[in-house]
Amino acid sequence: MSKKPYVRLDKNDVAVLLVDHQTGLLSLVRDIDPDKFKNNVLALSDMCEYFKLPTILTTSFETGPNGPLVPELKEKHPNAPYIARPGQINAWDNEDFVKAVKATGKKQLIVAGVVTEVCVSFPVLSALEEGYDVFVITDASGTFNEMTQKAAWSRMEQAGAQLLTWFGAACELHRDWRNDIEGLGTLFSNHIPDYRNLITSYTQLTAGK
Amino acid sequence: MSKKPYVRLDKNDVAVLLVDHQTGLLSLVRDIDPDKFKNNVLALSDMCEYFKLPTILTTSFETGPNGPLVPELKEKHPNAPYIARPGQINAWDNEDFVKAVKATGKKQLIVAGVVTEVCVSFPVLSALEEGYDVFVITDASGTFNEMTQKAAWSRMEQAGAQLLTWFGAACELHRDWRNDIEGLGTLFSNHIPDYRNLITSYTQLTAGK
Amino acid sequence: MSKKPYVRLDKNDVAVLLVDHQTGLLSLVRDIDPDKFKNNVLALSDMCEYFKLPTILTTSFETGPNGPLVPELKEKHPNAPYIARPGQINAWDNEDFVKAVKATGKKQLIVAGVVTEVCVSFPVLSALEEGYDVFVITDASGTFNEMTQKAAWSRMEQAGAQLLTWFGAACELHRDWRNDIEGLGTLFSNHIPDYRNLITSYTQLTAGK
Amino acid sequence: MSKKPYVRLDKNDVAVLLVDHQTGLLSLVRDIDPDKFKNNVLALSDMCEYFKLPTILTTSFETGPNGPLVPELKEKHPNAPYIARPGQINAWDNEDFVKAVKATGKKQLIVAGVVTEVCVSFPVLSALEEGYDVFVITDASGTFNEMTQKAAWSRMEQAGAQLLTWFGAACELHRDWRNDIEGLGTLFSNHIPDYRNLITSYTQLTAGK
Amino acid sequence: MSKKPYVRLDKNDVAVLLVDHQTGLLSLVRDIDPDKFKNNVLALSDMCEYFKLPTILTTSFETGPNGPLVPELKEKHPNAPYIARPGQINAWDNEDFVKAVKATGKKQLIVAGVVTEVCVSFPVLSALEEGYDVFVITDASGTFNEMTQKAAWSRMEQAGAQLLTWFGAACELHRDWRNDIEGLGTLFSNHIPDYRNLITSYTQLTAGK
Amino acid sequence: MSKKPYVRLDKNDVAVLLVDHQTGLLSLVRDIDPDKFKNNVLALSDMCEYFKLPTILTTSFETGPNGPLVPELKEKHPNAPYIARPGQINAWDNEDFVKAVKATGKKQLIVAGVVTEVCVSFPVLSALEEGYDVFVITDASGTFNEMTQKAAWSRMEQAGAQLLTWFGAACELHRDWRNDIEGLGTLFSNHIPDYRNLITSYTQLTAGK
Amino acid sequence: MSKKPYVRLDKNDVAVLLVDHQTGLLSLVRDIDPDKFKNNVLALSDMCEYFKLPTILTTSFETGPNGPLVPELKEKHPNAPYIARPGQINAWDNEDFVKAVKATGKKQLIVAGVVTEVCVSFPVLSALEEGYDVFVITDASGTFNEMTQKAAWSRMEQAGAQLLTWFGAACELHRDWRNDIEGLGTLFSNHIPDYRNLITSYTQLTAGK
Amino acid sequence: MSKKPYVRLDKNDVAVLLVDHQTGLLSLVRDIDPDKFKNNVLALSDMCEYFKLPTILTTSFETGPNGPLVPELKEKHPNAPYIARPGQINAWDNEDFVKAVKATGKKQLIVAGVVTEVCVSFPVLSALEEGYDVFVITDASGTFNEMTQKAAWSRMEQAGAQLLTWFGAACELHRDWRNDIEGLGTLFSNHIPDYRNLITSYTQLTAGK
Repeated sequence: MSKKPYVRLDKNDVAVLLVDHQTGLLSLVRDIDPDKFKNNVLALSDMCEYFKLPTILTTSFETGPNGPLVPELKEKHPNAPYIARPGQINAWDNEDFVKAVKATGKKQLIVAGVVTEVCVSFPVLSALEEGYDVFVITDASGTFNEMTQKAAWSRMEQAGAQLLTWFGAACELHRDWRNDIEGLGTLFSNHIPDYRNLITSYTQLTAGK
Repeated sequence: MSKKPYVRLDKNDVAVLLVDHQTGLLSLVRDIDPDKFKNNVLALSDMCEYFKLPTILTTSFETGPNGPLVPELKEKHPNAPYIARPGQINAWDNEDFVKAVKATGKKQLIVAGVVTEVCVSFPVLSALEEGYDVFVITDASGTFNEMTQKAAWSRMEQAGAQLLTWFGAACELHRDWRNDIEGLGTLFSNHIPDYRNLITSYTQLTAGK
Repeated sequence: MSKKPYVRLDKNDVAVLLVDHQTGLLSLVRDIDPDKFKNNVLALSDMCEYFKLPTILTTSFETGPNGPLVPELKEKHPNAPYIARPGQINAWDNEDFVKAVKATGKKQLIVAGVVTEVCVSFPVLSALEEGYDVFVITDASGTFNEMTQKAAWSRMEQAGAQLLTWFGAACELHRDWRNDIEGLGTLFSNHIPDYRNLITSYTQLTAGK
Repeated sequence: MSKKPYVRLDKNDVAVLLVDHQTGLLSLVRDIDPDKFKNNVLALSDMCEYFKLPTILTTSFETGPNGPLVPELKEKHPNAPYIARPGQINAWDNEDFVKAVKATGKKQLIVAGVVTEVCVSFPVLSALEEGYDVFVITDASGTFNEMTQKAAWSRMEQAGAQLLTWFGAACELHRDWRNDIEGLGTLFSNHIPDYRNLITSYTQLTAGK
Repeated sequence: MSKKPYVRLDKNDVAVLLVDHQTGLLSLVRDIDPDKFKNNVLALSDMCEYFKLPTILTTSFETGPNGPLVPELKEKHPNAPYIARPGQINAWDNEDFVKAVKATGKKQLIVAGVVTEVCVSFPVLSALEEGYDVFVITDASGTFNEMTQKAAWSRMEQAGAQLLTWFGAACELHRDWRNDIEGLGTLFSNHIPDYRNLITSYTQLTAGK
Repeated sequence: MSKKPYVRLDKNDVAVLLVDHQTGLLSLVRDIDPDKFKNNVLALSDMCEYFKLPTILTTSFETGPNGPLVPELKEKHPNAPYIARPGQINAWDNEDFVKAVKATGKKQLIVAGVVTEVCVSFPVLSALEEGYDVFVITDASGTFNEMTQKAAWSRMEQAGAQLLTWFGAACELHRDWRNDIEGLGTLFSNHIPDYRNLITSYTQLTAGK
Repeated sequence: MSKKPYVRLDKNDVAVLLVDHQTGLLSLVRDIDPDKFKNNVLALSDMCEYFKLPTILTTSFETGPNGPLVPELKEKHPNAPYIARPGQINAWDNEDFVKAVKATGKKQLIVAGVVTEVCVSFPVLSALEEGYDVFVITDASGTFNEMTQKAAWSRMEQAGAQLLTWFGAACELHRDWRNDIEGLGTLFSNHIPDYRNLITSYTQLTAGK
Repeated sequence: MSKKPYVRLDKNDVAVLLVDHQTGLLSLVRDIDPDKFKNNVLALSDMCEYFKLPTILTTSFETGPNGPLVPELKEKHPNAPYIARPGQINAWDNEDFVKAVKATGKKQLIVAGVVTEVCVSFPVLSALEEGYDVFVITDASGTFNEMTQKAAWSRMEQAGAQLLTWFGAACELHRDWRNDIEGLGTLFSNHIPDYRNLITSYTQLTAGK
């Protein structure tokens, strides 16, 4: 049990780490279907942009079989620090990466990546070790199978990480719909088909009012 | 591990928070089948009435795509405080809601709602932060999929919430069948088909005795 | 492959056989959850009443461990022929039952019951043998497990039965919403929570128009 | 068993029927996840456009709780016949719809829609009855649950329909990659994340060659 | 579709083939849990004894890694023909086995064994080829996994075999409870815990009557 | 995390509580198949007898729809304290039950029952509150569905209970095969078909040695 | 239903078609886990070699994103016809491929490949159209998901293909263990861990005999 | 929650315990498919060899029905201490075993074995009790079913063990790809088919560069 029951995401105090969403590594992900996973990763990326969260990209061995970063992430975050690690498996073992994290000056970290048990879990544990509050975006992280997923989640939970999805994170960051109804609505509408359907029905029915 | 192994529901010290069971939001629920979910929500509502538990209703954006509160809940709890939140995603961020909770004078809170990761999880964490004992009714709460459910449960467990179903809550509140056999039996019979079948068989077989 | 691609339900030429929905036997049903199953059986029953379809009830060993007929079915169809079979496992082996079927003068039979592999499958095969067009309501029929379900469905399909659910049957019988929008809408609203939610949202949004 | 083992899709002899992909009805679909389903429906729509297949849109009760057609389909097929049925559940019972089908002069029909057991199954059976070769796009059609899906597929198979997915249909229509590598590659890349990843990796690795 | 819709089991015209239920081969069975599977095999064996059906036992390579016949089967059927095949994989390729089958003079065959795709499927196909009516007891047959099971069932269905479980077979053989209530009740009570519970409840409730 | 990593079962310091394994309540159990569940309950019962563990039986409302205790348990433990509770849902609220527990003089409790969330969970929490080390036999306890099971396990884990199966408990109690090879082997052979198969193969192969 | 109940594999009259097992395409396979799938494909390949079956390899677009043939297949079948198709999706549309098939002079074809719905299904349907008896090795063929798999299997079944696994095929080809116990045993031992375990246990236990 | 968030595997301070991977016991494993499981166990074994980790083998009752150690493990670790326990179920109760562990001088232990709930869980708990940091390789450990697996994992987590898979352990031990790209690449390529495919594609595409 955490010491403090509610460690709450604060959009002014959070940075986002996107770890190793590379085209080759994505073929290893089998605990979540590829079309759902792509949607979640892009939703998380849109969320970072929407809340203007400092975002850090990192990859391992891009020029080898792991493949390049998914191009959509590079395009969405053109000015984000981009650390192509020369060999470190745990991104936190890379000095440039840690410097980039510290340069944000934030105390809360949102982390997602591929594969969950390694590329996500290792820097999450390292960041917890250094006293950060860490939030793992479970549905924008993927790994080999459910057995691996369960073990990875267990290890991070035990160490004090909080698990949530991109939707939960977005809601916790936004706090109040009145801050911007249209912006958040668009984010949800673009990535939650059921929500888009609600809005489409609603718009038509109230059109003539 | 909780400090105190057994924090037990006490019908004289509990209030119930039903959060955002709205017709639009219900279309987002996919971790539990809709007919089962409807049955569970109505069972929880009947349980509140049966034990005369102070109940608080709240909704978000009722006039928008989220849709109105499920009409059965409004009808069942006509005198319950009803807080239509103007924008706060976490109900606990709404002053009127917190006032209504505090006005009950209870120390234990039962919470259920849609979607689990946000509308349930956020006020649960806030209430734990303020020292309440919180019981989440898992089967009257719903969310997007199993992955989201698992993450939401994990976060609430870590913070000290207790998870149970409406049936478990009803049994813990009732303590002893002799307090009212017929009343509890009716509650179960109306919402647990297997239990109704037992009673029907029993009634026929003992009819002539 | 059927000789005729489309053998279509015709509300003027169909009778319904509800076989052995008894309280004891229902405890054997484990290929569908009990609350879903109850909802489906009552939906089918309401459908029979709505379309005024001649309906025949039958049971086996009601006074023994199989238990009495589910009381809701008896109440809904007070004037239906009710054949309490003295021992025949296949209802079609009971002369009174077959007479009741023939007395309806219909050529199409809708069948549902418990358990699928026996109480449904046997009379379905017998009726096919005698030249009836048979429609099995899969979701108002239940059995021990998925393996049994698959075997039972396979045998009935091979023999020429058509499989569908109560919803599909209702739609095929109704043909055109304009025949009665409110009636069919009520039937669906009472047994399909998602559909009821759509209607509730719609009703509120268009209330002021 | 079909009389002719291989009835093969021919892009010069096929029309596409998109039935009732309406925002309200989509909330009933629970045999396929909403983000996957949306992707499949849009993929099928893109396929129709890519192969310039005559496409017919139809809806039921658009102004009621079923909701409007998904806007993306209307936008993608602005000149397609659009039959808003006044009440017929089986689209084939609507004269305008059948006229539109016949006006295409095609002998093969691709059908997808919501919900599978009714809005897809009924016109599929009617079209088979009239001698068309019918191909059901299973993954762009959705329904209440797996039990309903299995029953619907069984009925259509028995009547002679062929089941395949949008990807299978696209491959069978295209016949030979040399007809247009880039076009088909783009269609797949836009809707199959794994395939896009292969292409991204390939493009980078061969960039400097 | 079968030529005759209802080919019905007749206890006077059926023989049972139990193929290769050997202790080693049983470790390969993973499409059904071992405790359920054991229960089903013993239930089938008890059924054979109860209806006094001529039963034939056969094994392959008993002295090698496949292991000996499950001892319970040998004990239950001490006088059954027992063909330890010297090498034939398809039992029907063994002359002694076919002779034993023909010596029963029956036209209907019930078959179960391990593994489904080979030891069951091969003699089933051979027997169908020779004009027998064949009934496969699916839940007393086991194989490597669900994929293998589905392929094996598909092949046997296509060839005209009927699939059912031991319970379905027992009911079809018995025809009428009045033939012997206690005997059949005991068979079910010994192998269907839910049924035993019904009987236990019933017996107590009616004890004092 | 427990204070002491390894709280180990000690056959000289453990008592067993079998709670509400009644024929009616068993029809509510759907998170484990009935034949597996029966096997597990009987295995646990045999284990108690084998290790001569003091065992306490209790039931609720035996004369009502919950039904009588499963007769096998009564027969196996004829001299066990048998507390038919007049109404208390939590067995620990019954003075006679607690007296019987205390009379054993043991500090460790093994608990199993129906349904997990109530009849098991409540006395487990109460016993933990009083300082007992509690071991829940998960596979001899059953409840409505997986969602309820997960919630019940979570609550007991949080309070400090240890989860294991009857097999794990038997192994931990036995410590060393040399204490009695044949006795433990028989227990396993009677309830683990795979283990029996190993022994049967082994026995035959070494028979002539 | 097939005209002839038992069309049986004959090792003297069968050729094997391995279609598009390419490293890129394999990343699309998600209806079977990658380690199981690899094992099955290599088992099928070993089976071809063991029975000296004429085998034909084919690929599509090897130099593009689909990637090269899995190297193990090329090594195992160095002299097999190897048709790198320039663009045809259906291998049967490639003249060289059909020539290679016809050059074998066989009437039975075993087919496996990636993805099932296209690369397997299309040549299977074409071969059936030309009168071949076709056997699909389901577990050495893979595709996007279960929904696609079911549709693909359905279409091939309807057209008259027989479904089985590599193990079933091997057994049917071998006919009698006495033809070569060691050879077949080695094939199974190398690809079925459970079988290898049986043999290892057996070998040790009988070592001293 | 652990006291120290990140207890990290250190290849210089870790020993590996492989417990009871015996041919007979492996037939009991049903929470993971046999081909996947074999692959994982051999991968773990290769990992031990690659990192030159001191490895200890132990078995129970090798000459009885549990069967001999899987021969591959014996061959891979010819010089490893090999403790054939005469009867202790918990390997930690065997003095020679504990001596062998202590002789390694390591503080971290990696443990895997069959069955998880007993042969893994017991020594894991004992080692934690003595102050070791323990890492359980979940996917090279197997047990009867998922229910047992969940209970076993829960107990070990509560006591402070860390769960991970062989892949996660290998990555954490390696730290940096630059330590040896080819060696780790070969390990992954031999046991992760998806990874091998990436490398094969990559190698071909970059061959001519």
